[in-house]
Amino acid sequence: MLSKNKIKYIHSLELKKNRKEEGVFIAEGHKLVGDLLGHFPCKLIVALPNWLEKNPKVTADEIIEVTPDELSRASLLKTPQDVLAIFEQPHYETPTDIMKHSLCLALDDIQDPGNLGTIIRLADWFGIENIFCSHGTVDVYNPKVIQATMGALARVKLHYCDLVKLITSVKDIPIFGTFLDGNNIYGEDLSKNGLIIMGNEGNGVSKEVSKLINKKLYIPNYPTSRETSESLNVAIATAIVCAEFRRRSM
Amino acid sequence: MLSKNKIKYIHSLELKKNRKEEGVFIAEGHKLVGDLLGHFPCKLIVALPNWLEKNPKVTADEIIEVTPDELSRASLLKTPQDVLAIFEQPHYETPTDIMKHSLCLALDDIQDPGNLGTIIRLADWFGIENIFCSHGTVDVYNPKVIQATMGALARVKLHYCDLVKLITSVKDIPIFGTFLDGNNIYGEDLSKNGLIIMGNEGNGVSKEVSKLINKKLYIPNYPTSRETSESLNVAIATAIVCAEFRRRSM
Repeated sequence: MLSKNKIKYIHSLELKKNRKEEGVFIAEGHKLVGDLLGHFPCKLIVALPNWLEKNPKVTADEIIEVTPDELSRASLLKTPQDVLAIFEQPHYETPTDIMKHSLCLALDDIQDPGNLGTIIRLADWFGIENIFCSHGTVDVYNPKVIQATMGALARVKLHYCDLVKLITSVKDIPIFGTFLDGNNIYGEDLSKNGLIIMGNEGNGVSKEVSKLINKKLYIPNYPTSRETSESLNVAIATAIVCAEFRRRSM
Repeated sequence: MLSKNKIKYIHSLELKKNRKEEGVFIAEGHKLVGDLLGHFPCKLIVALPNWLEKNPKVTADEIIEVTPDELSRASLLKTPQDVLAIFEQPHYETPTDIMKHSLCLALDDIQDPGNLGTIIRLADWFGIENIFCSHGTVDVYNPKVIQATMGALARVKLHYCDLVKLITSVKDIPIFGTFLDGNNIYGEDLSKNGLIIMGNEGNGVSKEVSKLINKKLYIPNYPTSRETSESLNVAIATAIVCAEFRRRSM
């Protein structure tokens, strides 16, 4: 039985302010919740009887069995699934020199939750374990981000920081970014370490950060006699860049 | 002045059934509407005075100047912009042998409007002009698809058809698809023509269509000591595949 207060509490976590105060985030669906359990301490599980039967060993501070009707009142999704869980937000030390030894991403004011979630998922696929986000980037614990990560958050660490301070604090590191006037990525040297910076959906990389980029790249479009789209979605561009970096080092 | 009936009519177009009956689709925002004007006959423009001032030569069957308040009542967006337009749906002949001479995409039951819109946008970037969609694929005229295309619909043609019939009707054409047990894409011969088939978000390519694929590809993840995401978002996978096809032919 799910109390009105509990439903109110769950919905209050749609707001970043409340998530931050409580230090928690919400995930929904058996696949996603299953992937996150064991990686993050679980505060609350709200689930249908069949999910609980299939997961008899699940541990959480509180477990509530509910009816489909109760779950749909608690859920933030249009199509509620079989389980909703509240996890503790992790805390990571920001290892500012990690990019000396490995390839990292930096996101400069990415706004769309779906884009951020998709980028986290593809970073995981390409073995990128650290993503630095400007303070203006959408909150990783936004439920829409969490759903789009498909569980990759269990393996990829996000660090919110001042990107200018971060980049100026490390020396002799390749700093990559994509620009319409950059060099064709297929003709450039790509490294196994460094930072790849991706910019805001509408405005690209900010001026201050752009100045610090020492390797400007361009993803060539396919030359046709007609005009084509002026740009790629940021998650799409991130994927093409990451795939090419990894192809080179295979 | 926007009548209640007009607002009701605009909102009725959120449903595929009504869009099909009327043979129209909705687009919003000065960038998108600007890109589509001139490519598709325009039935209705609903715009703020400043948009109309900047576009004095616009032609449409009906043009209505509105206040921000009226526009927000008509708009399907959370954050209404400065213009909303209703365009006629185009009608294309399905050129079943086009894939003999050029690279085409086929989408097997893609469900998410954002994914379809993003795929149309990246197809345009990579000079792919024809996309064949199974009847189970989300409607291209869904407003969320239209918004995500960022205007690429002016240059990319979508054909809804039976994919099995389509593929069996053409002979000696490379038919590509991505599978977890496919061959590493970076070691395979890729052609300048043929069909690249991308599958449903949850279930991949259907069994019937899978049987007709003669070139099974795999996008390698980056080998790490830890487990990674099991799959990539379908728009991301499409982008990586298209980028690699085009890189080879540069």
